[in-house]
Amino acid sequence: VSDLAATSRRLAGLGLRRTTLLVDRRRAVANIDRFAARARSSGVVLRPHFKTHQSAGVAAWFRAAGIDRATVSSVGQAAYFADHGWDDLTLAMPANPREVADYAALAARVRLGLLVDHERTVDALASGLDRPVRVWIDIDPGYGRTGVGWHDGERLVAIARRVTATAQLEYAGLLTHAGQSYAARSANAAAAVFDVVRQRLRSARATLVAAGLPGGRLSAGDTPGFAATVDWSGLDEARPGNFVFYDLMQLVAGICTASDLACAVACPVVGVYPHRREAVVHAGAVHLSRECLAHGGQAEYGRLLALADDGFGNLLPGWSLTGLSQEHGILTAQGEPATAQLAALAPGDLVLVAPVHACLTCEQFGSYRTVEGDELLRFRRA
Amino acid sequence: VSDLAATSRRLAGLGLRRTTLLVDRRRAVANIDRFAARARSSGVVLRPHFKTHQSAGVAAWFRAAGIDRATVSSVGQAAYFADHGWDDLTLAMPANPREVADYAALAARVRLGLLVDHERTVDALASGLDRPVRVWIDIDPGYGRTGVGWHDGERLVAIARRVTATAQLEYAGLLTHAGQSYAARSANAAAAVFDVVRQRLRSARATLVAAGLPGGRLSAGDTPGFAATVDWSGLDEARPGNFVFYDLMQLVAGICTASDLACAVACPVVGVYPHRREAVVHAGAVHLSRECLAHGGQAEYGRLLALADDGFGNLLPGWSLTGLSQEHGILTAQGEPATAQLAALAPGDLVLVAPVHACLTCEQFGSYRTVEGDELLRFRRA
Repeated sequence: VSDLAATSRRLAGLGLRRTTLLVDRRRAVANIDRFAARARSSGVVLRPHFKTHQSAGVAAWFRAAGIDRATVSSVGQAAYFADHGWDDLTLAMPANPREVADYAALAARVRLGLLVDHERTVDALASGLDRPVRVWIDIDPGYGRTGVGWHDGERLVAIARRVTATAQLEYAGLLTHAGQSYAARSANAAAAVFDVVRQRLRSARATLVAAGLPGGRLSAGDTPGFAATVDWSGLDEARPGNFVFYDLMQLVAGICTASDLACAVACPVVGVYPHRREAVVHAGAVHLSRECLAHGGQAEYGRLLALADDGFGNLLPGWSLTGLSQEHGILTAQGEPATAQLAALAPGDLVLVAPVHACLTCEQFGSYRTVEGDELLRFRRA
Repeated sequence: VSDLAATSRRLAGLGLRRTTLLVDRRRAVANIDRFAARARSSGVVLRPHFKTHQSAGVAAWFRAAGIDRATVSSVGQAAYFADHGWDDLTLAMPANPREVADYAALAARVRLGLLVDHERTVDALASGLDRPVRVWIDIDPGYGRTGVGWHDGERLVAIARRVTATAQLEYAGLLTHAGQSYAARSANAAAAVFDVVRQRLRSARATLVAAGLPGGRLSAGDTPGFAATVDWSGLDEARPGNFVFYDLMQLVAGICTASDLACAVACPVVGVYPHRREAVVHAGAVHLSRECLAHGGQAEYGRLLALADDGFGNLLPGWSLTGLSQEHGILTAQGEPATAQLAALAPGDLVLVAPVHACLTCEQFGSYRTVEGDELLRFRRA
């Protein structure tokens, strides 16, 4: 029996009949434990980004590893985790002046951290918050998304003066997302980004101190940099998120191994087309997201994983999701043994697709199934 | 006051403070009415695909235009619309043998149509259904996704014999999705695809009739082909879906005009970076989907629309969403007046983003807001 056929039988044995998000708890817990140990040995607080999983059930695995604070990216996520006992949350998007009343309501329930990089936002928080809230200055470490440029001393000092002069705002420090590490194509390249960004954060803090301002703490968060670096010291806080599940994007970048992949989508086969060396599964962009790996002109939207008796197994060689529309995915078989396995495939079989970008794939579902058969609910935006 | 500033004020006037899916009812109704009229004059039944909007509220606008049957792509969608009074539904994915009990439950509530292209599926339906269900043979019209090849007479006859020999299966006809029309770069090119596919369907039917089998009805559905073709006659049924909202993909392909765009996402600005000619909005892949238009090496994830007093306005020249991460979107201003408008932009302003692919963007939300302020709920997968 091929791994493909055995996987189909095991997925059917879980009672699955349609497209379902699966998580391998043991793998996720191992990923969490590895990062928690590294944070401890580096003397850095791990404040994982929960936007990846958005599930109180998964969050409980972090709690079991001694983690008691988290990062989120919206008011809705913050309220959800507050409802589930998380009382120290950083909302790692630049604050939105229109949501100040929501921040005030959250701050009455949890120790809340917010981000600013603009005077207008500082002023809106100052006038709309009725109790002290922790505020980080968002730093652009050369990624070019949000934040004050790490080297833009004039602007940095101006924002920091405004924050520190405002009674309701507790200045926390400098926070960054080194998103450029996602473009690294090796662990060494990601580690090099980590070193550069850590140095840039320290340099920005030195600018504040030289201006007579408090330097504050340094917070950074991106899975590639933190996964590729053993010693995080020099930072105060780490906010990676994706590492709990990893995905094909991290795999091809050399950031994780296939045995770290902890979430995948079980999909029914609905069509088999051996003359094209293809099958079609009921799993499209609405399940997996449109995120893809580009190989020259060919896009890849997922690969097949085996399901073993005790959890996820290896990637199945030769199988790749090469096309994706709204609800359909096209599976292509390359070489042996995949083409032989394809010949035995039929509608109603089930396959397990490892996603390209776990954060976006998980966002498409309302719950996870564990390989033990439990259901873990997820937060969903209204 | 610029259109950008007026749009922000109007969106704020709707009480919006965070990322929200908006629909312009009048535009959507005009799009529906245009297609309903064309179906009537062509003598073709319009059975629109509701996967685009997945909302009972939007479905009611179709009902008002005299449409009383629909297409869906999952058991969940079918059950949702059945709950809202739609009693004639085609599930336009090849049937999944693992969901036969779900089909049987649906068939007890609505007149149900299913798709087959494989013997295994026919047999599963035959043994699992306890009452007659309409069955279409899925035809691949040269797109290469699902279906029996339109020119594969041997296989077509074999499947049709199996269907027509099964008492519980009411043979309905041949159904296709001409997905290749989405690659057309002009209305003329899409119309040419339509003509070819209509001819291929008729040829496949002639093959069945020549073999002494019933020919059945012909059903096709893709927005570009049907939007680009005035006379749909020769087909029996039309199943396009996207036309209710259209999107930038259809706009750049010449299939619709900017004044047809009927859904968009209101987003708060959270960062402004004039030295990069960029702003950042709280709208990422989790709101808009990762679908993009490719212009050489540059990807585009959305454009800005104006909001007028009575609904959506024009596209705002020079504004484009050029970057997208999980929760952030990067807005770029090119030329005047966009760069001048950028200088006046601040966190807390609101912009209205026309999506690249409406079906995928709408999937990311639990409800629509109309420009009149009503809320329309949407189906969500568990």
